[in-house]
Amino acid sequence: MTKFVRFSLDRGIAPTAPDSHPGVRYGILQGEMIQETPSLFEYRPGTTHGLDAVRLLPPVSPSKIVCVGRNYADHAKELGNAVPTEPLIFLKPPSSLIAHGDKILYPALSSLVSYEAELGVIIGRRARNVRKQDWADYVWGYTCVNDVTARDLQKKDGQWTRGKGFDTFCPVGQWAVPGDAVAVSGLRVQGYLDGKLVQDAPVTDMIFDLGDILAYVSQFMTLEPGDLIATGTPPGVGPMLPGSSVRVVIDGVGALENSITTES
Amino acid sequence: MTKFVRFSLDRGIAPTAPDSHPGVRYGILQGEMIQETPSLFEYRPGTTHGLDAVRLLPPVSPSKIVCVGRNYADHAKELGNAVPTEPLIFLKPPSSLIAHGDKILYPALSSLVSYEAELGVIIGRRARNVRKQDWADYVWGYTCVNDVTARDLQKKDGQWTRGKGFDTFCPVGQWAVPGDAVAVSGLRVQGYLDGKLVQDAPVTDMIFDLGDILAYVSQFMTLEPGDLIATGTPPGVGPMLPGSSVRVVIDGVGALENSITTES
Repeated sequence: MTKFVRFSLDRGIAPTAPDSHPGVRYGILQGEMIQETPSLFEYRPGTTHGLDAVRLLPPVSPSKIVCVGRNYADHAKELGNAVPTEPLIFLKPPSSLIAHGDKILYPALSSLVSYEAELGVIIGRRARNVRKQDWADYVWGYTCVNDVTARDLQKKDGQWTRGKGFDTFCPVGQWAVPGDAVAVSGLRVQGYLDGKLVQDAPVTDMIFDLGDILAYVSQFMTLEPGDLIATGTPPGVGPMLPGSSVRVVIDGVGALENSITTES
Repeated sequence: MTKFVRFSLDRGIAPTAPDSHPGVRYGILQGEMIQETPSLFEYRPGTTHGLDAVRLLPPVSPSKIVCVGRNYADHAKELGNAVPTEPLIFLKPPSSLIAHGDKILYPALSSLVSYEAELGVIIGRRARNVRKQDWADYVWGYTCVNDVTARDLQKKDGQWTRGKGFDTFCPVGQWAVPGDAVAVSGLRVQGYLDGKLVQDAPVTDMIFDLGDILAYVSQFMTLEPGDLIATGTPPGVGPMLPGSSVRVVIDGVGALENSITTES
C-alpha cells in the first residue's frame, strides 16, 4: 500500500494551507521516512525527510468537501431520521480541515459535539455527469475523514453549514492511498472513542454506493481533482468531550486520530 | 471608482479557474482598457489590454462562497418563511462561479429556477471572531452576485446544496470595487429581468447588516482573503426561463448581466 502524505517543513503552517502555499509538499511515507514527490498526481522521487521532522497536513487540498448525510440506514434511524431516497448532500468549508494529530476545538457555542467516522474519496479527474458504472475512472483514491458535527446547532439551524463547518471540524488523513490498491467492497469503517470501538460497519451497508454518489453529485456540480467526498457515517455516533480522543480506522486505507480540546 | 477585473488572454479558460492557474490575471478597468496589476491586494501597473481582447473571469477566486438566506424581511415573507432571528448561513461551491456575460445553464433537473440579486462582500484579511464594530477592517470591497436558485430542489432537498450549487449558479462581477470608495449604507440592490425592474431595496433593509454577518460567520469559520459573502436578496425573486436575461445593479458598486440557456 503506497501512502501519500502532504506535509510542510514549516511547523507553523496552518493545516488549511492550500497547495498554492510555497511551504506545502507531497511525499510517500515508507516507515518513518518521507520521500518527496511533486503531487498526488505525479510520481517523481525527490528529497527524503524524517516523519518526525515535518508537520503533516491533510493529504489533500480540496476545492470543495462534499458530504453525504444519512448514508447508512441504521445511522439515519439512530438520530430519528427517515432513510433517504436520494443522496443527501452538504458541504463543509475548506477552513474546517485539520490533519492527523491536530486538535479538534470544542466550540463554546455548542454543548453536543459528535464524531462521525467516514470513508473519504479523493477525486482524480474532473467529473461531470459521471455514469454510475464509470465512477472508478474519476477516483484517485481514499483516505479517512471525521465529519465532526455540533449536533445541537445542526438541528437548531436547519441548514447544516454552521453545525458541520466550524474550524477543525474536518480531520482528514493520516495519509491517502491510490484507488488501484483498494478493494472498496471489502472495507469496514470503524470509529474508536478513547480506545473503545463505537462505530463499525462494512461500506457495503451504504444506502448509496460510490457509483450512486459520484453520479448524483456530478449531475449538478463539477468535481475537480483533489476534491474530497465524505461518504457518510455508520451507526454509533455520540458525544465527544474535551480530553477525548477519536480514531477513524479503515483497514486497507489507514487511520486518523485526533483529540478534542476546549476552544481557548 | 476603481474597477478591479480578473481576466485571461485565453478565451477557453474555465470561469472557475483558480488563481493558481497560470492564465489568470488581474487588472484595473479604465474605459475599454485594462491595466494589469498582480492581484486585488497589490497595485503595480503592468501591461495594458483591450477589454475586447480578454475573457473576463469572476473578479475573485474565493476559497468559499458564504451566503446569507432570508436577510430581507419582505423576501422571507414572500416565500412564506419566518423572519430569522440569527443569520441563516449556507455555502455555494466554487464550481458554481461564472463571470459577467457567461450563460446560466437551466438544469434539466429543475423546473423553477430563480434569480436573486445580492451585494457581494470580498474579504480582505483573514477573519476569525471579528467584533461587529470592526467589520470594515476585514473587507476588501464589493461586487454584484446573482444567487441563482433551483427553488423546487431547494424545497425538496431540505439542505440547499444542490438547489443553490449547480454549475453556473453563481454569477459574480462584472468587476470588484475597493471598500474605501463605497458608502455601504447608501447602496440599493436592484434586479432586472429582461430589462424590467423586479427587485429594488436599500441595503439598510437587511435584517442582519454587514457587521452582524461578519461577526456571526467568523465566530465559527475563518474567512480568508478573497472569500466572498453573498448578503441575501431583497423581495421580488421569481422564475427565469431559458432566453431570459438577468441584470444585478448596485449603483456605486457595479452591474452584472447574464442570460440563461437550456443545458445541452
